[in-house]
Amino acid sequence: MMRAEIVSVGTELLMGEVTNTSARYLAEQMRLLGVDVFYQTTVGDNHKRLEDTLQQAYSRADIIITTGGLGPTTDDITIEVIAKSLGLPLVLDENWLQYLRDITQKYKLKLTENNKKQAYIPQGAMALENNKGTAPGVYIEHEGKIVVALPGPPYELIDIFEKQLIKLIKNKVGGETLHSRVIRAAGIGEAALEELIRDLIDAQSDPTIALYAKMGEVHIRLAAKACSYEHAMSKIKPTEELLLDRLRDHVYGYDQVSIEEAVGQLLRQKGLKLVCAESCSGGLLGSRVTNAPGASEYFLGSIVAYDNSLKENLLKVPRDIISNYGAVSGETAQAMALGALENAGADVAISITGIAGPGGGTLEKPVGTVCFGLAYSDADRSGKTAVVTKIFHRLLIGSREEVKYRATQAALYYLWQELK
Amino acid sequence: MMRAEIVSVGTELLMGEVTNTSARYLAEQMRLLGVDVFYQTTVGDNHKRLEDTLQQAYSRADIIITTGGLGPTTDDITIEVIAKSLGLPLVLDENWLQYLRDITQKYKLKLTENNKKQAYIPQGAMALENNKGTAPGVYIEHEGKIVVALPGPPYELIDIFEKQLIKLIKNKVGGETLHSRVIRAAGIGEAALEELIRDLIDAQSDPTIALYAKMGEVHIRLAAKACSYEHAMSKIKPTEELLLDRLRDHVYGYDQVSIEEAVGQLLRQKGLKLVCAESCSGGLLGSRVTNAPGASEYFLGSIVAYDNSLKENLLKVPRDIISNYGAVSGETAQAMALGALENAGADVAISITGIAGPGGGTLEKPVGTVCFGLAYSDADRSGKTAVVTKIFHRLLIGSREEVKYRATQAALYYLWQELK
Repeated sequence: MMRAEIVSVGTELLMGEVTNTSARYLAEQMRLLGVDVFYQTTVGDNHKRLEDTLQQAYSRADIIITTGGLGPTTDDITIEVIAKSLGLPLVLDENWLQYLRDITQKYKLKLTENNKKQAYIPQGAMALENNKGTAPGVYIEHEGKIVVALPGPPYELIDIFEKQLIKLIKNKVGGETLHSRVIRAAGIGEAALEELIRDLIDAQSDPTIALYAKMGEVHIRLAAKACSYEHAMSKIKPTEELLLDRLRDHVYGYDQVSIEEAVGQLLRQKGLKLVCAESCSGGLLGSRVTNAPGASEYFLGSIVAYDNSLKENLLKVPRDIISNYGAVSGETAQAMALGALENAGADVAISITGIAGPGGGTLEKPVGTVCFGLAYSDADRSGKTAVVTKIFHRLLIGSREEVKYRATQAALYYLWQELK
Repeated sequence: MMRAEIVSVGTELLMGEVTNTSARYLAEQMRLLGVDVFYQTTVGDNHKRLEDTLQQAYSRADIIITTGGLGPTTDDITIEVIAKSLGLPLVLDENWLQYLRDITQKYKLKLTENNKKQAYIPQGAMALENNKGTAPGVYIEHEGKIVVALPGPPYELIDIFEKQLIKLIKNKVGGETLHSRVIRAAGIGEAALEELIRDLIDAQSDPTIALYAKMGEVHIRLAAKACSYEHAMSKIKPTEELLLDRLRDHVYGYDQVSIEEAVGQLLRQKGLKLVCAESCSGGLLGSRVTNAPGASEYFLGSIVAYDNSLKENLLKVPRDIISNYGAVSGETAQAMALGALENAGADVAISITGIAGPGGGTLEKPVGTVCFGLAYSDADRSGKTAVVTKIFHRLLIGSREEVKYRATQAALYYLWQELK
């Protein structure tokens, strides 16, 4: 398997002024091409340090891709240092110079001496056309190594990569590439999930199984190498089924599907209308439900009754319940869900009431205490429609915003569990 | 000047599955502390390669900060490899084990053998408390080097850095450090704002002025080097006043203060109660208002009337208005605000109704069309209380989630403008 190394050049990266999204992009592309990436390095616009970094990369990798430092100014040194590190002279690329003449004329700009510098590339190198800027990408095959220099701006880099570089590298790599499928699970923590499938992870190398903890959920990535996506998926299928068998109560979707989309899908399928009643989450649950395009098909709205007066007036929570059990209680959550269900004429209602913190906690109900109510109409044994309610309690960890988010995540999980 | 090197550990970074935002964050923090960063390296969860990378970093830098690989699973190897690379044994940190026992008990989780691994740190190291996860950060001073291991999840890393690490490093660095103040402005774009203060930016080098475009707002960073925060602020003050003079209608706050906090502050001062009426934002406005701790003092709630039936039933929007002008219209927005104001017994109400997309746009009302209504009680000339309403229209750019966010940002700006 071929190895690539990504060298990002730019003082602005070292100063933390910009996030290195290009390194992620290139790493992902390499993975899809079946090329291993063992190191990514970021280095500034400094001759000695850049050359040291390149020499080290040549010693460890077959493909070395640099990003940045191709601009017209004097601190753009990448091409010069690459040429020096490979022992190659810089030569004028007449075609690129002509291209620079043409575009500067077209946009009525002056072709500066600085710009002309961008037409010099290492001897034997190929200029990669850049439709979005004045610096060409550079592709060099030299003594068994492939060295590629790409411009820093992500849109220039991606354009060159997709239109030209991907083919050149594919030809060198040939054969199998890595494909993956992400299984998304909620209602369980990473450690507990790992315990459930530890033996599978240990026994398994093709496809590989990797766990990623996200806030309020866990992602399981299955990855296999194959000549085609379809073939990779057929290799992944048996492992996926073993996992699903153990995680049936938790796996709500795949790849890019969020839990709010999975819930929306179920509501749409069943033709049900949802309403939410929120207190401590402040509207975040409704907001997440409406992040799914087309949510208007199944989402009526959310009554955010932050103040108890709204719990009484808009959600018809009896004052007794709040005074006897407190606003944060299973009883209030249940009454909120019932009130929302009836008030909105919905088929399903879910409520959240809790203590997001940092203040407001007590010994009995510490910060992070959240109660949930679920209410829906169902046919009882005699066939008559009756309203069913369920109550859930959780103690959630984290800051105010995290408790809010985790509360909506739990609510969506309870909804999903009920609907599936 | 001290040198730091950032070593990011994680196969998910090398595979391009996540963007390395932590490297940017740490690089920026080092810059602010006056520490040079010459290299950032990313390496996978591999013993040999991680140890090689660490040894190289020890040879080039005074402060070595690793991120990631502190989790409970077997592929989390950072602490083990750091200990080996420094020739230190791993020892049990009883305090951390006790903390793990406490939190697993509190949240009714099982303390797995995996989790216990997280209580082992190199001999002589200090555990840095992590309130947001189960792995402590680790701080080691050894043979003239400072080695720090931070967890991968950015919210854990930032919390440990800000609460504990920044002081430890500041003590080592000493001397002049860079201090800054961020002025936050809303209701104006970056280019327009820059035009207003172009001459100040050009004339100014100490403090420096830098603009950062954020979604729906612009941040202006004033930075000066000084021995103390107070001295830096006294250098910054005159420039700050020049800027405020020109940006009076837009500057709502400083540093970490969000616009929802600025609005909350004004509501609290004036003793006013707010209610929201939302459609396309789905509850995001209420959620943002409640991100400010203590919002219950001034926030009654939000009526998210996504479906028109709830606009009629809960917000008392006359059916005629919706059928004559459409759900996305200034008239409906106005009626929503009025309905919410009366229904909730609030002093101020703000409403949002719009088309978040990707579907639902028309030639007349394209995706991104959003209408806002503001309603509040005010004394008229004769001293009698009357309800005042205002209507705003915007065409917002971006994806569905961006339109939602920008709509809440605009609503908060209108509220701020009215209240200030």
